Order: sequence, then structure tokens, then C-alpha cells
Amino acid sequence: MIQRIDVSRGHGYPLLLGATLDELGGHLKTAYGTSGHYLLITNDVVAGYHADKLLDGMKDLKTDLITVPDGEQEKSLDRISKLTEQALQFKADRDTVVLALGGGVIGDLSGFFASIFMRGMRYIHIPTTLLSQIDSSIGGKVAVNHPSGKNLLGSFYAPQAVWTDFDTLQTLPWQEMRNGLAETIKHALVADPDLFEFIEEHADAIKGLDYKIIKEMSLRSLAVKVKIVTEDEKEKGNRMLLNLGHSFGHALETEEAYQGVMHGEGVSIGIAAAANLSRERGLVNDKQLDRILNLLMKMDLPTTAKAHDRAVLLGHMSADKKNKAGNKVLILPVGIGRSVIAADCNDEEILRAWEKVII
Amino acid sequence: MIQRIDVSRGHGYPLLLGATLDELGGHLKTAYGTSGHYLLITNDVVAGYHADKLLDGMKDLKTDLITVPDGEQEKSLDRISKLTEQALQFKADRDTVVLALGGGVIGDLSGFFASIFMRGMRYIHIPTTLLSQIDSSIGGKVAVNHPSGKNLLGSFYAPQAVWTDFDTLQTLPWQEMRNGLAETIKHALVADPDLFEFIEEHADAIKGLDYKIIKEMSLRSLAVKVKIVTEDEKEKGNRMLLNLGHSFGHALETEEAYQGVMHGEGVSIGIAAAANLSRERGLVNDKQLDRILNLLMKMDLPTTAKAHDRAVLLGHMSADKKNKAGNKVLILPVGIGRSVIAADCNDEEILRAWEKVII
Repeated sequence: MIQRIDVSRGHGYPLLLGATLDELGGHLKTAYGTSGHYLLITNDVVAGYHADKLLDGMKDLKTDLITVPDGEQEKSLDRISKLTEQALQFKADRDTVVLALGGGVIGDLSGFFASIFMRGMRYIHIPTTLLSQIDSSIGGKVAVNHPSGKNLLGSFYAPQAVWTDFDTLQTLPWQEMRNGLAETIKHALVADPDLFEFIEEHADAIKGLDYKIIKEMSLRSLAVKVKIVTEDEKEKGNRMLLNLGHSFGHALETEEAYQGVMHGEGVSIGIAAAANLSRERGLVNDKQLDRILNLLMKMDLPTTAKAHDRAVLLGHMSADKKNKAGNKVLILPVGIGRSVIAADCNDEEILRAWEKVII
Repeated sequence: MIQRIDVSRGHGYPLLLGATLDELGGHLKTAYGTSGHYLLITNDVVAGYHADKLLDGMKDLKTDLITVPDGEQEKSLDRISKLTEQALQFKADRDTVVLALGGGVIGDLSGFFASIFMRGMRYIHIPTTLLSQIDSSIGGKVAVNHPSGKNLLGSFYAPQAVWTDFDTLQTLPWQEMRNGLAETIKHALVADPDLFEFIEEHADAIKGLDYKIIKEMSLRSLAVKVKIVTEDEKEKGNRMLLNLGHSFGHALETEEAYQGVMHGEGVSIGIAAAANLSRERGLVNDKQLDRILNLLMKMDLPTTAKAHDRAVLLGHMSADKKNKAGNKVLILPVGIGRSVIAADCNDEEILRAWEKVII
């Protein structure tokens, strides 16, 4: 049975949860008729696991497949340029609907492509990873990276729908599952103390890949995201809280040219850095700091980074989208289950936070 | 005195007409206060003529200047990438306001950049050419080119305001004036038979650079654009009419890699091709066809192109944004002062239209 949750007020769209991949074709026929053109964009790894099942349900729909290499380095203007060429070869036009099958990279890349190709075509996100199911597929933020910084070029561009088949998680390697767990722990720290306790209590079940528990955790985690983005679609206020750990994490990803630390690893280290800064300011106590670091480590997520020049990392943080009038804006946890936007962080305390997490 | 015309209904914005460049600073202070950050983007030619005057009025506002080379070839993803780097060096953030000083290329490039940098910053267009004042600054369409086609990657992204100083036309070379005249004649053919007659009657005054006549013509021409885009912001219907001449013209521009035929020249040849196709269909008679071709020629605009492989040009037309389900959609003049959207053009008659304009 498909569960429907509507995201946002204005240009709202539904999350369709618990659907299976082969049912999508039927949904598309109902929504758009049988004469439309679809461009399925995915990566070579996801294609191997899931493309056949999805295409099985689309046999009588005109669907062309574009496969891009796996990896964060594909979120680039170069890849956008190549997609443009390929889409034209398939005679895509403004009425074509993009189907983005994959995780956060595919969602961001395909969504941004859909937002600018011929000034905008429709897209449907079919998230196949924990990270994309509970986080990146929700909220209409799409972007590519730039050598100067993560997600620097993008749009707010809502999909027509998000089609979430939780069964795809069963093919997800633990390394990718961890990526999503970092964002889940972030959601808990931003707005849901009960979710934090749930993950603590069921840590072994989650590591043991108990998909019933993982699904329950996912539903609670995505509910945090839906609530926040519905209240603040364009990230003028509280939506910035969802950037907890990302200012530090993006700096690491940028420094390693999106080919070193994984996104979830960067977020995890970033949460550790932000929690240390919170500790210095007295926003969390020692016990709370330990609970945060321990839960990350329990999930095999890193809380320290390999050696980098802290001043260079600080420099990358200048390209953060939250910054205002040249000042760095950070998100800091307050106890367990609440966070705040701090616009008054000075470079010295940020450097001290980096010192805590760099070996 | 500044004349104000509001464009569109939803996210409307004002055209502020008859303002002078040095008055912009005062307007910005009233609108945004004195603490904001401005990024003035222009090209090296326009900077020489107009940047000083504009900056004179902005002395107590924090303004950084980015100058790009002149020319259509700058409307590229590569230039977007360089602008990103430069904007970060000037510590631009989401609150920075872009000032786009120049013609259609600068407006399209800077507007598209503003639409995607950090997922969107505000911009104000300060058009300095006839083409941009009467056409491209109105309607919120921004884009860059791709080797496969003109304006293929872009957004609908409205400026905060358009600041139009008609005096800038007095530094405009005739070659650039012609570019705008092609679009003015297009506006007349799409929706305003009286404007067509006005240009015919005052052709000598226009060629003699009678700026009073040119200003009157401009106001009438931009009124056509305002009316059409207000009724159809997203180009779902009648706004497509404004593409008269552009399907053929873009194909020429693409074939010459944006470095051969100028945009207005392409449009002029495109109007000639479309008018010939209309003649074949009986939508215009011989006399009307002659009037159209004669007025273009009178304004030193080309009605024929140098030799190209027609099949290749036809291929480029496959990348046209108006196309539907693989079919080419063209705009065809009907008599003088009205045009229609034709979704039923076959390749043979398009090839015959090309034949009429290729020497």
C-alpha cells in the first residue's frame, strides 16, 4: 500500500512511500497518459540493481535511458553539458519527464538538469538510498558542485512526485547506509530527541540490517525533514538548521575534490566539530557530547578527519550558502534534539573546533 | 522623469524607463538600504562607455565590478563557472544583488548566473542596447548557449527591476542598433501593424539616428513585449509568437558557433525564411512579403545567409524549445501585424524556406 505525504504548501508535491519500482509505469500512465516521453537518468551501479524492474513497468511508455558514472564528482557543470547533448539525441523537449533513479547525487544532478534544460522540464525522483529517501529527495533543493564549493550552483525546483520504494535499501551496501544514518542522526539532533533515543536503542538492529526497524527509523526521520521544509521552503529561516554538520563537512568535501570523504562521512565529522563548538559554548554538556560522538561511532561513522590545513578548511567555509555579509553562519546543537543558528561564530573558535576533529 | 510599467501578474517587477544611470544608486538605497553588497557585471566595451557614470551614483554602496569579454560566445557554462569563482572572491552571498549592465548577452548571462548562484540571488537589469531595452530585459527569460543549441540551458527568473536609460542608445553603433531593429520589426509583425507602418514611415529618421523617433519606436515596441509576457509568463501559449524568426535564426547562430551571424542578423534572415514559408502557404501575399523583406533591407538587415548545408540547419532546429513530441513548431506571419503558431510544418517545406534565403 502506498502512503502519501504532501510536502510544502505552495507548489506542493507528494511523497509516495512504500511503492514498488515496477508500479511506477502505471502511476505515470494515470498521471500523464500513454503518449509522453520519459528520460530515465541513473548511474551504472543503480542501473544494475534497479533499472530492469522499473523499466518492466514502463514497457508501453516511450522511455530513454541515460546512465552516468557513479560518484559525487559527477555533480558538475561538465556532466550537465553532456546530459544536454544526450537528451537532445533522444529528442527530449520541454514536455519530457525526467525520472531520477538513484541516490543524492543522481537526484541533485538530474533535478538541476531538469530545472534548466530548455528552462525547465518536469522530474520525478525515485530515491534508492537511505540518504536520498529520508533527506535529499525532500524539499526541492537541487544543485551541482563547483571546484570552489559544494552545491554552489543550483535551484529550488520541486519534483512532480517522489516515488520511494523502501525495498531498494536491501541492495544498499553498509557504506552507503552509513551516509544516510549521518543525516538521520542530524534530523534527530535538530528536532527530534525521541528519534535520537530510538536510534541509540536500536543501534544493533540497524547495524544488523533489520529492515523493519530501518523503515520505522526512515519514516520518523523523513517526517522531520517534511515538517521543516514545509514551513520554510526557500531556506530563509529554520530550514538552515538542517545544515547542521554541513558547513564543516562541505569544507572537507571541497578540499578533497569530492573524491575523498563521502558526503555522510563529512556530515558526521561536521556534526562532531559543531558539537565540540557547542560544548565550548556550554550549549551541550560533556555527557551529551559523548552521546553524540558515541552514536556516530557506533554507526561506523568517522568523528575525526585526516590531517588538513585548518586555515584552508576555514577558507572553504567562506563559500557556504548560509553566510551573511561576509560572516560565517553555523548550526550548533543545544543538548540532544534541538539546534540553533549561530551567526556570531568567530574564526578562532571555528579553528578550535576543527582542531578537535583533525588528528 | 521615470516612467513605470509593471510586467506580469504574479512575481511582477517594474520597468523603470527614462531613468539615468547615475540615479540608480539612490534607487538602490531607497529599496535596500545602505549596507548591501552589489556585484556589477558588464562587458569590457559597455564598461568603457557606462560603468563610471553608474558607479558615480553608487559611491557609498559596497560594489564590486566583474567585466567579461564582449560577445555571444560568453553565454556559456564556462563563463558561469568563472563568474562563480569571481563572485566568491568578492565574498558574494545569497543577499548580494547582481547589477547586469549591458545588452542581451550580459542580461542573459548575469540573470542566469543570479538564478543559480547559491540557488538564487536578486538581480537588476540595466539594458544599454536597443535589443535589450525593447526585448530581452522584459519577461524574465535568462539562459546560456550550448554547443548543441542556442539558449538551451536557462530559467524563468524575474529581475527585481529593469532600469532603462534610453540615453545609452546614443553610444550604440549602428550594427548593434540593427540587432534591436530586427526584434522591433518582429514585434510589429507579431502584434502591431501600426508599429510596422511607423517604422516604414520613419525609416530614414531611424537610420539618421533621430533619438526622439527611436525612443517613441522603443516604447511602442516594448509595449508589445510587456503585453504578451504578462499574459503568458511561462511561454505555454502566445508568448511563443515572439519566437518569430528565431527557429531559423538560432539554427544559423548554432551552425556558426555564435561567432558568425549576429543575433539580430539571424532573426532577420529567420523572419525572411518564415515569411517565405507563409507566402507558400498563402498566409501573406507577394506585396506583404515584399514589404517585410524591404523593411528589413532598409534597416541594413540581411534577408539571405551565406551557403550552409540546409539539412544540417534543419538538424539544429531539432533543438528548438518550442518543439513538441519530436515535431518542429514554427511561428509564421499572417499578413502584416499578426502571426500564428504552426505545429504542422514538415521538413520539406522548411527546407524550401531555407532555400529561399540561402544564396
